[in-house]
Amino acid sequence: MSTFLDKLKAKWEENKFICIGLDNGEFEFDKSIIDQTHDLVCAYKPNAAFYKEAELQKTVDYIKSNHPDIPIILDAKRGDIGNTNEAYVKAIFDDLGADAVTVHPYLGKESLGPFLKRADKGIFVLVKTSNPGAGEFQDLEVGDRLLYQVVAEHVKNWGSNLGVVVGATYPEELKKVREIVGDMPILVPGIGAQGGNLKAVIKNGLNSQKQGLIISSSRGIIFAENPREATQNLHLQIQEVLKNV
Amino acid sequence: MSTFLDKLKAKWEENKFICIGLDNGEFEFDKSIIDQTHDLVCAYKPNAAFYKEAELQKTVDYIKSNHPDIPIILDAKRGDIGNTNEAYVKAIFDDLGADAVTVHPYLGKESLGPFLKRADKGIFVLVKTSNPGAGEFQDLEVGDRLLYQVVAEHVKNWGSNLGVVVGATYPEELKKVREIVGDMPILVPGIGAQGGNLKAVIKNGLNSQKQGLIISSSRGIIFAENPREATQNLHLQIQEVLKNV
Repeated sequence: MSTFLDKLKAKWEENKFICIGLDNGEFEFDKSIIDQTHDLVCAYKPNAAFYKEAELQKTVDYIKSNHPDIPIILDAKRGDIGNTNEAYVKAIFDDLGADAVTVHPYLGKESLGPFLKRADKGIFVLVKTSNPGAGEFQDLEVGDRLLYQVVAEHVKNWGSNLGVVVGATYPEELKKVREIVGDMPILVPGIGAQGGNLKAVIKNGLNSQKQGLIISSSRGIIFAENPREATQNLHLQIQEVLKNV
Repeated sequence: MSTFLDKLKAKWEENKFICIGLDNGEFEFDKSIIDQTHDLVCAYKPNAAFYKEAELQKTVDYIKSNHPDIPIILDAKRGDIGNTNEAYVKAIFDDLGADAVTVHPYLGKESLGPFLKRADKGIFVLVKTSNPGAGEFQDLEVGDRLLYQVVAEHVKNWGSNLGVVVGATYPEELKKVREIVGDMPILVPGIGAQGGNLKAVIKNGLNSQKQGLIISSSRGIIFAENPREATQNLHLQIQEVLKNV
């Protein structure tokens, strides 16, 4: 069975970098989005906050049945002590069937052990988030660096199934994180409704293979008048930028 | 309608400081624990990771119907951007009906706005967690302090419905946090299975009213041969320490 990273890399080889954030919480709505966009994306990212359990399961099952080649990143931002993280791993990977998940760094590597040992899955650690107030703690000075940079340095050494999250609204920070984490996948939310700058994201975020980015748009696509057209436009914009890097 | 803090303070006035962490995920099991312990506790703390949605709802409904005076803290350790936190607030407070929730600090005050504006509820921010590897980031030096202390300083000024989480396994850090946050409620998990030192927790954690602590035990009580006896023993140990402070 192919791992999360295998699936993701296959999509990058097809020049697909868009991840659609499913922030609506209704399966029938998601189904329509998926039917319109599956040939253009590298991943889908349902956000757990918006779903009742049964609807989320239907959306994940629909993607897995119809498009088993598209990885599913559950945006859940989990993070508890090890004993509890075992339960999240079971719920998210084994019961629900997601391919990857987002997690908080605050409790450290030891607490995330249950996630890190799942080599078949992807674990995306929050490094620099897309919200306006992200800097309150993330930009604190720790010696000669900022906290988000220290987190990125640690995560780089936590294992082979790791990725990091950096908001599209912070392209300069994305550049610094790319320098720190090498070729690791970076999930970049905040394109679209949150106003992230696509060109700067791509130029600053690509890895040495000119891949490595999961560019995520949620409200900008799913609530567009024509979601397929919005996805196609974003795809074309990305191809245009890629030609010039 | 009484707020979370009203309910909690009423329990403290009855000399009740024990919070039972419900980490099992089965309503019938929880019902048995609640029936045996409701007269001895200041709160129940179901951990979202262990529950299917329907079982969690049954447990919360059972407590609210039979013991509406006992506050329910949902241990969910949530934390996302503001737009998403709105959805968590609705799910946790309005749909499920919890009185309080635990959250991560990493995205900062701005992101937590939807939680902070719910003056009727309690918001417990992770400051120093109980796990062995908590120090990886939480003890990073930020100027002349450590990160967990800086987080505590910020949270102290975020509003009137705040509390903090400090693990019973770190009593010296608990002392420092109490000095920083004044009389704010402190949720202290890690008594029991995780080996926290009860006497040090009480001496270092009480506020100026000799209250302010929510002493949480999960596996040490719910998986004890006789959960009521385990709770009574802990209650008596707490009363004994309180006599001497």
